[in-house]
Amino acid sequence: MNRIDHIGIAVSSLEETLRFYTEQLGLALMKIEEVASEQVKVAFIDAGNVKFELLEPMSSESAIAKFIEKRGQGIHHVAFKVENIEQRIQEIKENGIRMINDIPKPGAGGAEVAFMHPKSAHGVLFELCDKSKTEGEKKSL
Amino acid sequence: MNRIDHIGIAVSSLEETLRFYTEQLGLALMKIEEVASEQVKVAFIDAGNVKFELLEPMSSESAIAKFIEKRGQGIHHVAFKVENIEQRIQEIKENGIRMINDIPKPGAGGAEVAFMHPKSAHGVLFELCDKSKTEGEKKSL
Repeated sequence: MNRIDHIGIAVSSLEETLRFYTEQLGLALMKIEEVASEQVKVAFIDAGNVKFELLEPMSSESAIAKFIEKRGQGIHHVAFKVENIEQRIQEIKENGIRMINDIPKPGAGGAEVAFMHPKSAHGVLFELCDKSKTEGEKKSL
Repeated sequence: MNRIDHIGIAVSSLEETLRFYTEQLGLALMKIEEVASEQVKVAFIDAGNVKFELLEPMSSESAIAKFIEKRGQGIHHVAFKVENIEQRIQEIKENGIRMINDIPKPGAGGAEVAFMHPKSAHGVLFELCDKSKTEGEKKSL
């Protein structure tokens, strides 16, 4: 748990928000993709040592739509880059942290992800993000 | 604007929160200091490529106390590492972004800091954080 992969940011509209990150801040857009299972459209922005993951809800049922409805647009989560996510989940639970996801689920960029419960983390939504399988596959090409 | 220095997190009590970051997540506490002008006690946690800046209010008048009262504990801001902060503020304003602080103010760790207005940043509170003078002094010792 010694590296932040990305900072997740809930936005109402990627189209409206991207101008801020790319033109006004001058950061590079890496890619845009849809994560159907989470009902979000995701844009990755290169912020140098970490990425911003901009999350636009694709339906009112998405967790991001509910977050925006309740709290407005803004920072949604912080993701640790991990390997062996199943093992890390186990260790975290042994350390007394409650997980929302005991079993990893598919995230953006081919990652496997799992969220800690914010009540265990003093109000912060932390994600574990494991891209080692995807990156491994890419390396072997 | 190509590096994140830290992620600021508002907490009610450093004492209660530090156990989560150090013992449960296994991250290292770097230092604790008070920023009297902001009425906050600050703990820096090493998260590898970025730092977490845990902010405990020292009085009910501190901006962090008001944040917690309104939204609860959680992620407060994201800070870009910059040099020549006065020049960066100027550029940002020229790019159409509204600043809360047109003039840098003292932050934790001897930094000069300035915040962008979250209304300009689609709900995210971004900080510019310039430690070049402090780090420069340290280097010259």
